Amino acid sequence: MSAPRLPMKPLMSLGDALAELIGFAVTLDGVESVSTFEADGRVLAQDLVSALQVPPEDNSSMDGYAVRCTDVVQALRESLSDSPELPVSQRIAAGTSGAPLLPMSAARIFTGAQIPLGADAVVMQEDCEVLASDTSASSVRIKAVPMPGQWLRCAGEDIRQGALVLAKGDRLTPAELGLAASIGMDFLPVARRPRVALFSTGDELVMPGAVPPEQMKPGAIYNSNRFFLRALLLRLGCAVSDLGIVPDQLDATVQALRAAAQNHDLILTSGGVSVGEEDHIKPAVQSLGSLDLWQIAIKPGKPFAYGRVQSAHFIGLPGNPVSSFVTFLLLVRPFLLKLQGASQVTMKSSAATAHFTWARADRRREFLRVRRNAAGGLDLFANQSSGVLTSAVWADGLVDNPPGQTIAVGDVVSFIPFSELLG
Amino acid sequence: MSAPRLPMKPLMSLGDALAELIGFAVTLDGVESVSTFEADGRVLAQDLVSALQVPPEDNSSMDGYAVRCTDVVQALRESLSDSPELPVSQRIAAGTSGAPLLPMSAARIFTGAQIPLGADAVVMQEDCEVLASDTSASSVRIKAVPMPGQWLRCAGEDIRQGALVLAKGDRLTPAELGLAASIGMDFLPVARRPRVALFSTGDELVMPGAVPPEQMKPGAIYNSNRFFLRALLLRLGCAVSDLGIVPDQLDATVQALRAAAQNHDLILTSGGVSVGEEDHIKPAVQSLGSLDLWQIAIKPGKPFAYGRVQSAHFIGLPGNPVSSFVTFLLLVRPFLLKLQGASQVTMKSSAATAHFTWARADRRREFLRVRRNAAGGLDLFANQSSGVLTSAVWADGLVDNPPGQTIAVGDVVSFIPFSELLG
Repeated sequence: MSAPRLPMKPLMSLGDALAELIGFAVTLDGVESVSTFEADGRVLAQDLVSALQVPPEDNSSMDGYAVRCTDVVQALRESLSDSPELPVSQRIAAGTSGAPLLPMSAARIFTGAQIPLGADAVVMQEDCEVLASDTSASSVRIKAVPMPGQWLRCAGEDIRQGALVLAKGDRLTPAELGLAASIGMDFLPVARRPRVALFSTGDELVMPGAVPPEQMKPGAIYNSNRFFLRALLLRLGCAVSDLGIVPDQLDATVQALRAAAQNHDLILTSGGVSVGEEDHIKPAVQSLGSLDLWQIAIKPGKPFAYGRVQSAHFIGLPGNPVSSFVTFLLLVRPFLLKLQGASQVTMKSSAATAHFTWARADRRREFLRVRRNAAGGLDLFANQSSGVLTSAVWADGLVDNPPGQTIAVGDVVSFIPFSELLG
Repeated sequence: MSAPRLPMKPLMSLGDALAELIGFAVTLDGVESVSTFEADGRVLAQDLVSALQVPPEDNSSMDGYAVRCTDVVQALRESLSDSPELPVSQRIAAGTSGAPLLPMSAARIFTGAQIPLGADAVVMQEDCEVLASDTSASSVRIKAVPMPGQWLRCAGEDIRQGALVLAKGDRLTPAELGLAASIGMDFLPVARRPRVALFSTGDELVMPGAVPPEQMKPGAIYNSNRFFLRALLLRLGCAVSDLGIVPDQLDATVQALRAAAQNHDLILTSGGVSVGEEDHIKPAVQSLGSLDLWQIAIKPGKPFAYGRVQSAHFIGLPGNPVSSFVTFLLLVRPFLLKLQGASQVTMKSSAATAHFTWARADRRREFLRVRRNAAGGLDLFANQSSGVLTSAVWADGLVDNPPGQTIAVGDVVSFIPFSELLG
């Protein structure tokens, strides 16, 4: 049986494909409240405004002595030496609030402790000499005259009351969790996890563990795409259902897709969606919804399918491992971030210097697997075939090479580190 | 009570501190076997050698027709037109192995399918014209004479049998999981997770949720460090026990440390370890083991404590949030990777252009919070105070600025993206 003819878009640029795909990614309904401890990687669903200021009061950024600067100047005038002495009138540890500073005295103070009323500077202990017993200093010699404001952290320096601390659409990382905690948030409103059903098709595929290497039949290969796709999905905050390898029968495929569409936002597959490929995915998706085959002018990764299975999104990635990996990073990643309402969905590239030659210009925009070397340049993996997953393991990023462009040693190219794409 | 005097090292460089700390991080005993699906982020504990080659046989990298090139040339000679015709003698789908190619014929073939014996090239279907009914092509017109090897993926092109595929000490990412699966590994030998006990001290600390912002007592601040430290530890593959805020009493502290040392590899805390600070951590650690206070010539982050509590490592980070965050990334991250036996433990920096001025040279090596702008340069967060966690949220990386160095607009600086440090 030949596959039914499917709507096929003309060759499109990555930019156009991405814009169209992101347009389909309507942000999911539903806000979850999760413990701030558990919110790493999630996307904030509401603005966070601070109900307090951080730090709450002026406090010391050093261990030392809080003083009134004019007192130090006056003590200096009255002193015979050039380092004035002040009695220590109190001791203020972090978490306690001291009494107003007595005139012509110093207060022993520790990092983070509140500055006593009347003090306007801290002299760090390295600039002081304690003139008393080891255990209870009764006076201190000030060896450096302070400037007003010295070693003070001002109230509200980090966060002012009423300030927008984190915005709806921010993707949370460890620092954001700390910041949210610092304004007292123990739970955070985040977008719910996209529910993704992942499966593979292809009679040649064998699950690792099912058959040992020495017993593999001719033509059989181990299923590898589902392993990296699942890990990538988890890194993007998705809840993943692994549907396994769907049997190559139309009824079984329709049934699997229909079941998956009930409780998933996205059905993701790899393989089986090229123009000439034979399988039951295409007619099955069409019978339950719609499917477009896209030809995207990128290499690796030209074939790409987007459709709907009832209310769920359907995305079909190429079957070649590197094509599948790269199209996931370039297209599915932004799609999933947009589903979660993230405001920043595209990757950041930076300029880097090629330490390699790329003589074969291609009509398509290419994403070459490269690695930064010790000299700060980029080396190229020798075999850029889309079947060679080793290239993606060896590499630590992609060169985004425009259509028709060759590369010579020393050329400045656009580099996208995997670290930007894997988080 | 004043704290007992502690061994204090002279001011040391970050490089020396890191080398010493990593020297203490003896790789943990114990190898775990985990499902390849669950091994993302773990460190491989043994070399992986392939028992098979990938791909297993020569196969097609295109949908098209497999031919013997000399047949095409001969058919061309015999043909009246300039595009020879060949009968289609068989159809080979992926996962099936075809029969040897009949002389003077073509085999319909699909991407990934095994090349039939005798064929030495594939003509992609875009270069062919089918001369038959829609459903069963009986002959095909070849519009482009193929070169031997064209559109073939050679057996073993990705991985040769016996090849070292992944090495002991490799940190696994999604692509590595796919590669391991492609050689049939359903379980992987990885280093066990470091068990880390995390706690905070400080009477000024309040847990978010325990007291609402409007009821915070003077001097009280919310505990924020534990939130980002826990998230960072989890990203590094650690199993984290959160011991909470330990009461500020010597007995309680000794008891908590002794209990934690029984079943943890590392006890991590922040705050309470500066020279002048008052708390019970220092005498408690000393009573159970040893403690050194380090003064590291970096900013933020000077104070740092390393010690032992019985057989467990003890690390005390500074209490200021940004100092705590940065010293974790610069020192604790490599320490934890080394505990897992990772071969690559230090971060990668790259050259970038400052779009800001930094006029205040410091004697210490500084790590400035910066963000890449749309023009490809780096902007500086205005307030570089170590108390301002907002700087770490706003920024997307650090400039590693040598001691005594000012920075002018246009200067090339060393940039470390957070994405390199957070994975």
